Amino acid sequence: MALTLGIVGGGQLARMMIAPAVELGIDVRVLAEEAGMSAALAATATGDYRDLATVQSFAEGVDVLTFDHEHVPQDVLRALVAAGVAVHPGPDALQFAQDKLLMRARLAELGIPQPEWAAVADAAGLQAFLDANGGRVVVKTPRGGYDGKGVRVVSDPDEVADWLADGTLLAEELVDFSRELAQQIARRPSGDLVAYPVVETVQRGGVCAEVIAPAPHGALRLAEVAAQIGTIIAEGLGVTGMLAVELFETTDERLLVNELAMRPHNSGHWGQDGAVTGQFEQHVRAVLDLPLGDPSPRQPWAVMVNILGGPVEGTLESRFPAALAAHPEAKVHTYGKAPRPGRKVGHVNATGEDLDAVVYEARAAAAFFAD
Amino acid sequence: MALTLGIVGGGQLARMMIAPAVELGIDVRVLAEEAGMSAALAATATGDYRDLATVQSFAEGVDVLTFDHEHVPQDVLRALVAAGVAVHPGPDALQFAQDKLLMRARLAELGIPQPEWAAVADAAGLQAFLDANGGRVVVKTPRGGYDGKGVRVVSDPDEVADWLADGTLLAEELVDFSRELAQQIARRPSGDLVAYPVVETVQRGGVCAEVIAPAPHGALRLAEVAAQIGTIIAEGLGVTGMLAVELFETTDERLLVNELAMRPHNSGHWGQDGAVTGQFEQHVRAVLDLPLGDPSPRQPWAVMVNILGGPVEGTLESRFPAALAAHPEAKVHTYGKAPRPGRKVGHVNATGEDLDAVVYEARAAAAFFAD
Repeated sequence: MALTLGIVGGGQLARMMIAPAVELGIDVRVLAEEAGMSAALAATATGDYRDLATVQSFAEGVDVLTFDHEHVPQDVLRALVAAGVAVHPGPDALQFAQDKLLMRARLAELGIPQPEWAAVADAAGLQAFLDANGGRVVVKTPRGGYDGKGVRVVSDPDEVADWLADGTLLAEELVDFSRELAQQIARRPSGDLVAYPVVETVQRGGVCAEVIAPAPHGALRLAEVAAQIGTIIAEGLGVTGMLAVELFETTDERLLVNELAMRPHNSGHWGQDGAVTGQFEQHVRAVLDLPLGDPSPRQPWAVMVNILGGPVEGTLESRFPAALAAHPEAKVHTYGKAPRPGRKVGHVNATGEDLDAVVYEARAAAAFFAD
Repeated sequence: MALTLGIVGGGQLARMMIAPAVELGIDVRVLAEEAGMSAALAATATGDYRDLATVQSFAEGVDVLTFDHEHVPQDVLRALVAAGVAVHPGPDALQFAQDKLLMRARLAELGIPQPEWAAVADAAGLQAFLDANGGRVVVKTPRGGYDGKGVRVVSDPDEVADWLADGTLLAEELVDFSRELAQQIARRPSGDLVAYPVVETVQRGGVCAEVIAPAPHGALRLAEVAAQIGTIIAEGLGVTGMLAVELFETTDERLLVNELAMRPHNSGHWGQDGAVTGQFEQHVRAVLDLPLGDPSPRQPWAVMVNILGGPVEGTLESRFPAALAAHPEAKVHTYGKAPRPGRKVGHVNATGEDLDAVVYEARAAAAFFAD
């Protein structure tokens, strides 16, 4: 019978795996946190992903278990593996996406360029790091942060006194970057991997707003170096499925690793319509240990613009008629989520040969969904 | 809340509407004939589409009802419309896809070029048509035929004596054609329509084997004439959603209408990977009366090759590793159906700039799934 993929988590990343899985002929099941989530169509179970019995029961009869997010606890993951469930990415890899201190230490071992960093256990430790790094640094909680949460820029240890009370923090130099990039790698359990073109990501308020693929105006070796960094990380951390490496391009043209994600990532949504094999199809293929698809762009340029928040009044769907009429070439994706300020509720992809025209197309179509 | 589309019928055409609906943000529900069908993922009901109560119950809460096939009886369709259900395509259009005699008569009224034809009620009537058309003609049952079923080429009325006992038949001249083409049109209830490029379809044993988009080596006005024919039919018959017009290109360069289909059609599968807006997304948009997407090709050539029958031993999925490894650019689609001789169980799309290379790519990848 058909191969069956189980996805833990019912968010939009799970939702966006459904379409390519259906196209290819893979059965998809989702363990959703609650009813009515983004990936509800494929939800065969509802429950708490932190509960081993819930996840184990869901995993029965699936060929491979994968994830909408990186939050399934290590003890649950390891118990699943011990019970013979094929889990991709596995706990040995996921720990580095779950704990930023572990990640920094491992990347250092691998010789990957990254910002100056330190594990700081108390105010004195943080003050020393501040003194050594210009008096203003980034402090992150090692676990649980995303989309700008769990991150503060501080110049005094008092500003993270609440966090320090809970444990050791990650301090990082405030990088003088000219822009942010992202490098995606797909890797199979058997070891094969492919690199996507490095892309430019534009953040607003700590949240990804736009992505341009490939990253324009790159120095000659930019794409090559980014792909090398991604490859070393994917292999060094034993990642299976999609890996996204968020990078700073510094004003002196170095690339420094900012964050990692071991799942499909907002920086890769462009590939749904812009690549021969988009990241969601690629993730499905990779975790099932099927041969990887061609990651090449279909067009010289692809631009993705997030729909953040959505309309203040009415539904996203109420904007379809005007948006689709004005932009018949734009590819509109919405996630079945209720509009709420700042929430990622959809995105628009556009592709073409002229970058300015493609950027305009994607932004103009997305603008119909905001107020 | 999200727009909800109900699809009657659980086959692969319903299945292939799921992916673009999910991408766009449309809720999809399917009334499947039985459990475990191709579109099972979205099945919210199982039952007989000929039973009004079953279909009416399924239709509750959907914004629009559409179809995987053309077999829902007229009395059921008309009762749904009377009950206020938005049905697309509606019964007034669908009758012409359900009854080939009605279709021929209506196309004649519209002045559409078609083969010589006659309604023959008995052996004498058929003999007269044979005498007038070279002694060898095509006979079709007006209702219920597809993929070569309900069609016979005969030179003597005795060869369809069994069919004549059941009622009037459609007799058609045996057209001296050089090749077969298909023209697709998408039309909204509000009247807007778009035409896809006319494609060449290659049939084997009465079943579509390959499609080349656009049709190569066309006479200068071929595409224009085909689009005109499709447009007149879509408007004249009041079609909503996707219309496929199967055409003969004759050896003297005329286009004659062979068959009609009022749903996504095998001749349009190339557009999933080869058009900005594939036929399945377009059908969803059209029946919901949303603005239509751009039907333009993404690449100069797209070729679709059907996977007919599948492996004699083992599953389709058992061929994934070899096929995907050899053809990372090919787009493999399978339908979750068990292999059986002659059965359409999947297809492969390939796109590119060189037609010979694209044909090779699609055929070579599809060949991995046959014995």
